[in-house]
Amino acid sequence: MNQLELVVNSLSRLPGLGKKSATRMAYWLLRSDNSFNKTLGEAIIELQEKIVSCSVCGNYTEEDPCPICTAHDRDRDLICVVEHPQDVMTIEATGEYKGLYHVLNGVLAPLDGVGPEELGLDRLVERTKDEGTKEIIMATNPTLEGDSTALYIVRLFQDEPVKVTRIATGLPVGGDMEYADRLSVARSLRARQDLAD
Amino acid sequence: MNQLELVVNSLSRLPGLGKKSATRMAYWLLRSDNSFNKTLGEAIIELQEKIVSCSVCGNYTEEDPCPICTAHDRDRDLICVVEHPQDVMTIEATGEYKGLYHVLNGVLAPLDGVGPEELGLDRLVERTKDEGTKEIIMATNPTLEGDSTALYIVRLFQDEPVKVTRIATGLPVGGDMEYADRLSVARSLRARQDLAD
Repeated sequence: MNQLELVVNSLSRLPGLGKKSATRMAYWLLRSDNSFNKTLGEAIIELQEKIVSCSVCGNYTEEDPCPICTAHDRDRDLICVVEHPQDVMTIEATGEYKGLYHVLNGVLAPLDGVGPEELGLDRLVERTKDEGTKEIIMATNPTLEGDSTALYIVRLFQDEPVKVTRIATGLPVGGDMEYADRLSVARSLRARQDLAD
Repeated sequence: MNQLELVVNSLSRLPGLGKKSATRMAYWLLRSDNSFNKTLGEAIIELQEKIVSCSVCGNYTEEDPCPICTAHDRDRDLICVVEHPQDVMTIEATGEYKGLYHVLNGVLAPLDGVGPEELGLDRLVERTKDEGTKEIIMATNPTLEGDSTALYIVRLFQDEPVKVTRIATGLPVGGDMEYADRLSVARSLRARQDLAD
C-alpha cells in the first residue's frame, strides 16, 4: 500500500467519509501547504494525550476540573444532563444556558448492558447533594432511550429536594408541518403554549 | 484554542467538510483507538515527503518514473491525456485501459494565465516522438475548458503522425433522459452508434 492509499484508507474510516471524499481530500492534502499537513497530523496524534474527561461533569477538557465546572459566573443551582460531550458544545453555542453540565456518556440501554451503574447515576445524585443543586434539566435526546433515561432520573430524584425538568420537543424552527413526523407534531400539540405568556 | 478546537478547525479546512462534520470526526477521534490516530496523523504528515510527481507522465508516485510508465505489459502506443492525477485512478479503476497516461495538472485557461507552456504541452509532443506514440486519447473533462484543451491538442498534433481521439460524452449509464441536461442529450444524439456494431 503506498502512502496515498494509506491516507485514503485511514481517512475513509472517519465517520461520514466514503472512499470518494477521502480520495478527494488526500489529493487536496498532496497539493496543500505542507505546514498545514503537519499541523493537522500532529493535532490528531496529540488529541488523546491533551484531552481528558472532567472528573466532576464528565465533559472533555484540557484541565481537570473543566472550565465550566470551575467557573464563578455560572448558575450553580442548575445541572443540565446530556448524553455526550458534543451536546455540551451544542448547548453552549446557543448562549441560552448558564448553568453546569453532567455528561452521561451514554443512555440507559438494558439490552446492551448499560444500566444506572454504567452511567454513574449515583455520582450524579452525590453531586447534586454536594452542590445543593435546585434543578436538573434533562437534555438527553428525544428518542426512546433518551426519554427512558430522563424518566428514570425523574424517579431517582423523587425523594430529593431537586426539581427535574425536560427540554421541550416539537417542530424544529424553520420546520415544515408537511414534512414533520407524526410524533413531533403530536408532541408539539401536547406541549402547546399560551401565546400570552 | 484547545486541542479539540485545533483538530476541528484543521479538519474543517479539508474540501467538502463543514464545521459540523469536522466536530463529529474530532469527537470520534477522541474515542477511537489511539494507534489509529497515530497512523492517520503520521500518514498525513509524511504524505508530501513520500509522494512525488512522475517526471515522465506527471502522475503522483512513490518512485520516479511511476509504475505505469515503467510497466512492460502496457500498450505503449497509447497515451491517455487527463487533467488531474485522480483521473488516472478513475480510469484505472475501470480496468478498460492498458495504455500510458499524461497528466496535464490543469487545462488551458487563458484568463487565469494558463497557456500551452504552463501545461508543458511541448513536453507531450516530445514524449510522443520519443515513444513513437500512435494514438492520444483526450480524456479531459467534457467542460468548456476541457473541450478547448482537447481541440488545442488536436491542432497541435495535426502535422504529427499521431491520431488524437476524444472520450465519448452522452448520458451516464443508469441516467434518466428526464433529468439529463440538454447538452448531454444533444451530444448523445450526435454521437449515436449503430447497434449492429
